[in-house]
Amino acid sequence: MSILVVGSVAYDTVETPRERRERQLGGSASFFSLAAIRFAPVRAVGVVGEDFRQEDLDLLSSRGVDIAGIVRAPGDTFHWSGRYHADMIERDTLATELGVFKDFHPILPKGWEASPYLFLANIHPALQEQVLDSVETPRLVILDTMNLWIDTTRDALASVLRKVDVLLLNDGEARMLSGKSGLAEAAASIRDMGPDRVVIKKGEHGALYFGRGSVMAVPAILLPEVIDPTGAGDTFAGGFVGHLAKAGADRDSDDAIFRRAMLSGTAMASFCPQTFSVESLTHLSDKALAERVACLEAMMTP
Amino acid sequence: MSILVVGSVAYDTVETPRERRERQLGGSASFFSLAAIRFAPVRAVGVVGEDFRQEDLDLLSSRGVDIAGIVRAPGDTFHWSGRYHADMIERDTLATELGVFKDFHPILPKGWEASPYLFLANIHPALQEQVLDSVETPRLVILDTMNLWIDTTRDALASVLRKVDVLLLNDGEARMLSGKSGLAEAAASIRDMGPDRVVIKKGEHGALYFGRGSVMAVPAILLPEVIDPTGAGDTFAGGFVGHLAKAGADRDSDDAIFRRAMLSGTAMASFCPQTFSVESLTHLSDKALAERVACLEAMMTP
Repeated sequence: MSILVVGSVAYDTVETPRERRERQLGGSASFFSLAAIRFAPVRAVGVVGEDFRQEDLDLLSSRGVDIAGIVRAPGDTFHWSGRYHADMIERDTLATELGVFKDFHPILPKGWEASPYLFLANIHPALQEQVLDSVETPRLVILDTMNLWIDTTRDALASVLRKVDVLLLNDGEARMLSGKSGLAEAAASIRDMGPDRVVIKKGEHGALYFGRGSVMAVPAILLPEVIDPTGAGDTFAGGFVGHLAKAGADRDSDDAIFRRAMLSGTAMASFCPQTFSVESLTHLSDKALAERVACLEAMMTP
Repeated sequence: MSILVVGSVAYDTVETPRERRERQLGGSASFFSLAAIRFAPVRAVGVVGEDFRQEDLDLLSSRGVDIAGIVRAPGDTFHWSGRYHADMIERDTLATELGVFKDFHPILPKGWEASPYLFLANIHPALQEQVLDSVETPRLVILDTMNLWIDTTRDALASVLRKVDVLLLNDGEARMLSGKSGLAEAAASIRDMGPDRVVIKKGEHGALYFGRGSVMAVPAILLPEVIDPTGAGDTFAGGFVGHLAKAGADRDSDDAIFRRAMLSGTAMASFCPQTFSVESLTHLSDKALAERVACLEAMMTP
């Protein structure tokens, strides 16, 4: 069943201690779509500027992503620029040029309001809520957010959170949103805000799932080298939501199906840091993905 | 079967953002012994000063730890003083007063040279090797170390490492010792130095086991609050080695038994930060420990 995603389609300029890449394809909707498309049909909603390369749109559509919801507007594509520290975890944002994203008002192509799965990627919570309200009766709504929105638009975030089923965020953000230092307490507090299930991402330390009646911890795949971790969280979301859509999950499904989706998300996310931009996602074989799921299962066996 | 441990028996002065505790019982041998004694007989080798409280020795022996190897010497007990940051992970060492530990030359009580299990807690690697060489034919030798020895006594550490079966260390230390950033590569490199199995501890993110043919990740128990994490690593070691001794493991045992020991170590370690000093270990019920092992198994189920 189809997944509707709304998020950023961006150009990223990334500096690591070893290399610098300018204006490579990025954005939450790009990473998410290229991951989720391996599991289910994906409909992408977003905006790009006049400078956006046709080949990047072609890349998305050649992989099967329906890009009818990505409009081209006068101005420049959203551009993020950042520099990673030696640990390849900490990073400094050097510039955030919103460009056409500043006046982005998502509009759904005809028929997309009936999408059964809705992923609200990390954008302004008012935009997330606007899209959510224009989808008719989604089976499952998953939302990702970040410290910026928790810090600056808390009321708008609280409003949309009341309507979502699953929240994805990282450990620092979970503590910030809840005011609790213990992650189980943070998740419980967040569940009181609306989302029935909470996924806390911890980067190289894996991820935690807090469901209706169970808690799960998934380790990360151990990587020999991190080239560029940008987009790993959105790639996780693509594997996670993709798995749920393929399995036909809804908001009342058992934790078991969400727990399996955690493995798909984690396995998928592990490819992202191994190359710059979306490269590893476009060259990924089903066999390689299945091997990483099996690797996680082996690591998790008591 | 009995475990011989050599390590520090110390007084710790610990400051957290909320409280300060002076000269409370600490040291690697203390935490280790009180954890391991739940599984198997423990023989402790160490030194204390004239200031060491008889009640603290009594505490160890009342729990069944054989303290015939803890000698009292003229001078002061080893005293560590540290301050935890708000995250309760980072800490600054304020003072390290070696006291009687400066001239510590471990001597085994008669008969202890036949101990089947040997835990070389985090002390100078030359002392670790001296004890190792005085034990006749141990079934299994486990060693813990820290950044200080990796940095300042690398040759002595390399020498003892060639003779041990299992090395415990944290993620930063594994990277430091191996020069590799990827933890799987770090573990492989360390295995080339001698230890056939490597356990990498990651605090609130759990621990990794690298065995002969398998890798395992165990999450940490999610705690509502951290009161004092001092000694959690040694407590992990106590549960881990205790489990192996109770099960009768030797250096040729299957990974399976070491993997189960990881659960015991992790479950045991989770109690340590919930109180100051060794308090939680002295009041721990078998039922509470079994519940945490079951909790880990539930968290790890795909």
